[in-house]
Amino acid sequence: MYFSHMISIAILGFGNVGHHLYRAFRKRPVKVLQVFSPSLKVSEEAGTQFINDVSQLEKADIYIVAIKDNAIPSFTDSLPFENRLVVHTSGTSALNSISEKQRRGVFYPLQTFSKEAEVNWKTIPICIESEHKEDLPLLQELGNILSENVVEISTEKRQELHLGAVWVNNFSNHLFHLAEDFLKEAHVDFNLLRPLIMETARKLEAMSPSEAQTGPAKRHDTQTMEAHLKLLKDPKHKEIYKLLSKSIQSKF
Amino acid sequence: MYFSHMISIAILGFGNVGHHLYRAFRKRPVKVLQVFSPSLKVSEEAGTQFINDVSQLEKADIYIVAIKDNAIPSFTDSLPFENRLVVHTSGTSALNSISEKQRRGVFYPLQTFSKEAEVNWKTIPICIESEHKEDLPLLQELGNILSENVVEISTEKRQELHLGAVWVNNFSNHLFHLAEDFLKEAHVDFNLLRPLIMETARKLEAMSPSEAQTGPAKRHDTQTMEAHLKLLKDPKHKEIYKLLSKSIQSKF
Repeated sequence: MYFSHMISIAILGFGNVGHHLYRAFRKRPVKVLQVFSPSLKVSEEAGTQFINDVSQLEKADIYIVAIKDNAIPSFTDSLPFENRLVVHTSGTSALNSISEKQRRGVFYPLQTFSKEAEVNWKTIPICIESEHKEDLPLLQELGNILSENVVEISTEKRQELHLGAVWVNNFSNHLFHLAEDFLKEAHVDFNLLRPLIMETARKLEAMSPSEAQTGPAKRHDTQTMEAHLKLLKDPKHKEIYKLLSKSIQSKF
Repeated sequence: MYFSHMISIAILGFGNVGHHLYRAFRKRPVKVLQVFSPSLKVSEEAGTQFINDVSQLEKADIYIVAIKDNAIPSFTDSLPFENRLVVHTSGTSALNSISEKQRRGVFYPLQTFSKEAEVNWKTIPICIESEHKEDLPLLQELGNILSENVVEISTEKRQELHLGAVWVNNFSNHLFHLAEDFLKEAHVDFNLLRPLIMETARKLEAMSPSEAQTGPAKRHDTQTMEAHLKLLKDPKHKEIYKLLSKSIQSKF
């Protein structure tokens, strides 16, 4: 699908996702007309206006709302226009969390964003959804500018996917965090685990998690598991260790 | 440290670790004299003898025992020689789980080995330990042939490290496994999560797990967490979700 003019967007919200979208789009053939956030100082950067008052919003092809989930309904209801394409970037919010005054859509980049870390947009799945069929090609086009992996997906499936993302990213990162904590306490260098963390992910490029599973729980090696439980001082760590080991054992 | 002759080794045990060591060493300047496993057919491959009877073991500089932890004491006790350098490859077994008849050592590659997946030896930490100081340089030399990351580490610290490895690899891989399971059930393509898994690991090359943490639990976003718990059908999955979310919340 070809659009004869450059797509113009406004980014509403300037947290992690908003920042990353801004940084990505301004390097690509997209007109980032405006960035809105209540805390922004009014200014201009390379053709983009930074504003802090929604009444200053101009006409754009797509308004990308990158704000907290629970603020989406009231914020999109407060916009000083109607019947324009307004999309949110949330993994969990329903399409219809956006005000019914607007043409609703979703533009959800399935990735973990921290302000400091650069991301590789090309490989990031972008999950799109639209209330009106005729808005989908524009979202597809905008997605294609960033990524090779743009998929149309319903609110229901997107929510399942987001739950999966919490498991593979948030939860596994927390396990890294806990490991770092108790290695620090044991005066062992956490850096020694970094190649293993990388390999844990890399392995999955060629095999399924089930095939990639190794370790004492899979082998039902109770001696090692007991030794590990003895090494863990924190009862909460013991509880997580037991629960995850039991869960692994139930699979093998 | 320079050794005037090529180091000769025998690999005892031919499971995942034994296989990978064999495949790695035979491409490098190391004499792999023999590979022993009770189930092997007697044969020869490119100068390496495959044997199934320990009585056929010849003199080697280092005997690398890559067998189940609980078999190490009796197996090393049954070897038909004494006072030679015998090392195990275990993360958890003590140095002195090796028979006292031998010069004991450890050669523990800190990595996850599956038969099918190739590994990048250069970055794998190899943890070495020796009963006799004078054996350490030889283990260091052998380690250097494979890896740029050879570290001397005591049994106690190695056990802590192995526990850390279980958290960052076994447990996080299991979370990937659970995510794959329930996405399959929800008819959502697990492949959409693969770039996120890779990024979860890649992010840690530049920041700590604590800095990299994102998600509803970190944000104390109870609405999303409740929605997720509703999506999870399996009570065991709910339990893991709750426990890990609580643990994340306690950190932020």
